[in-house]
Amino acid sequence: MGDPYELIIIGGGPAGLSAGMYAARSRLPTLLIERAMPGGQIVNAELVENYPGFPEGISGAELASLMERQATKYGLEISVAEVDGIEVAGEQKTVRTSEGQYHAKALIIAGGSEHSKLGVPGEEELRGRGVSYCATCDGAFFRDQVIAVVGGGNIALSDALFLTRFASKVVVIHRRDQLRATRILQERAFAQPKIEFLWDTVVKSIEGNSEVRQLRLMNVKTEAEALLEVSGVFIAVGLRPNTGYLEGVLALSPEGFILVNEQMETGVPGVYAAGDIRAGSPRQVSSAVGDGATAAISAERYLSSI
Amino acid sequence: MGDPYELIIIGGGPAGLSAGMYAARSRLPTLLIERAMPGGQIVNAELVENYPGFPEGISGAELASLMERQATKYGLEISVAEVDGIEVAGEQKTVRTSEGQYHAKALIIAGGSEHSKLGVPGEEELRGRGVSYCATCDGAFFRDQVIAVVGGGNIALSDALFLTRFASKVVVIHRRDQLRATRILQERAFAQPKIEFLWDTVVKSIEGNSEVRQLRLMNVKTEAEALLEVSGVFIAVGLRPNTGYLEGVLALSPEGFILVNEQMETGVPGVYAAGDIRAGSPRQVSSAVGDGATAAISAERYLSSI
Repeated sequence: MGDPYELIIIGGGPAGLSAGMYAARSRLPTLLIERAMPGGQIVNAELVENYPGFPEGISGAELASLMERQATKYGLEISVAEVDGIEVAGEQKTVRTSEGQYHAKALIIAGGSEHSKLGVPGEEELRGRGVSYCATCDGAFFRDQVIAVVGGGNIALSDALFLTRFASKVVVIHRRDQLRATRILQERAFAQPKIEFLWDTVVKSIEGNSEVRQLRLMNVKTEAEALLEVSGVFIAVGLRPNTGYLEGVLALSPEGFILVNEQMETGVPGVYAAGDIRAGSPRQVSSAVGDGATAAISAERYLSSI
Repeated sequence: MGDPYELIIIGGGPAGLSAGMYAARSRLPTLLIERAMPGGQIVNAELVENYPGFPEGISGAELASLMERQATKYGLEISVAEVDGIEVAGEQKTVRTSEGQYHAKALIIAGGSEHSKLGVPGEEELRGRGVSYCATCDGAFFRDQVIAVVGGGNIALSDALFLTRFASKVVVIHRRDQLRATRILQERAFAQPKIEFLWDTVVKSIEGNSEVRQLRLMNVKTEAEALLEVSGVFIAVGLRPNTGYLEGVLALSPEGFILVNEQMETGVPGVYAAGDIRAGSPRQVSSAVGDGATAAISAERYLSSI
């Protein structure tokens, strides 16, 4: 019995749904495997203002649902399962999941990445209501307000510098007394009068009713607690791509992102990556849908050629 | 007097409008220069079915108008002018146009590319009504129908092969008796039973009332004329990027497309390219908006660093 699918897509965020829509519209029998509900990270976004085509903005959940409807309209099948691993044996690709194995001749990996959490009270409850993991996406919501950035690496300082375009003051909260970020970013941040640093400090909780109002902080050396009034907090303490199961199969960057060329090819024939899981992604809905379309077109060409 | 703009974007298609929206939303004073009306090539598309977020499809003109509204809402300025050339002198970039010179510190070039036309009666009138220049975009509209592809290069044969997923028959019309396409594409096309070739043949006119009904053909050796009934014709006789004025300034591919890396950087600091004008673009609305967002984020980082 032949396998029913020519293409399997892992991940149902904007990249996976865009790839699935392109593939299904090209009449490729395609299965998309998503571990929870389609939409990926964007389902947590209360308002997406920067996806072209929606001048008034759109909620992430609604945008995800539109994208899902568009993909399934052309025949994309969606299954819910947790992917454990992939195997590549020439043209035959196998995806092992919690619900069994699936086979196809081409794979697009669009499993996204996860922002590391602080794991403090209020973080989950106030997400999208002042708690954000994406300065490019949400900075514009905080004009002339005081906001905090948590972290000390390159993303934290880039975010802080970017946020000075909007905020009246940006407080960088870092648990150590020195930064991991590159020297040039440090110099720029120290020279920017809107940025203040709180060293040796951790966030104990994020407080507010319907919106972030203040942070409860603790100095890790003195254990003294303090309150900081902010209307937003950007958490930039790390980003983990969902690629643990791909080690040894695909080439990954030191941080674990999948290395691809501009056609979204991984180096393994017939295997592509798209969206936040690939190295160099700007982590935007618009770039993810572009990646998905590109990967699907590449997969279609590969499938026509074997 | 300081220049009023930090960033200038050349071209108002999906790539330029996406870049403009991102830049303006990041509070960069930004000017977009478009030679005609915003929207670029998509304003000619009667129905765009494959831009994620619009499950029922949307007319190209309406999508362009939504994108324009979203970008100007954040303060993007749009001027109508024909660009004649750019000059780069370190951080200072000058854009020479039919309406005078503009200056900024960063440039995004998103001027698109143009499909070469046959220049025959009916081609313009029936565009979007059976005449198409994009198989990926429009192939799905021709299920179980007879369609023609005009051309003999790689794009023509890739299009013909792709269109066999939908059409009952694909007739490739080529003015010579041999193809320019690579050997492997030729072999695949010859082996595909749905594809037929008409050699030494040119299209004299495209005929139909509200939709394409037939092609009037002429054999260039015998000058005999014939009619071919088709419901669609895909014209793949060449693609010209609008980069004539960039020769000697930016690195271009042999075909004239702008070479960029995955961050849409051209190699000239502060100058970026996005959309169909860059080498390797899949020429889709979704990839163009992704390119635009990526280029704007790169430009914003550059402007913060100088």
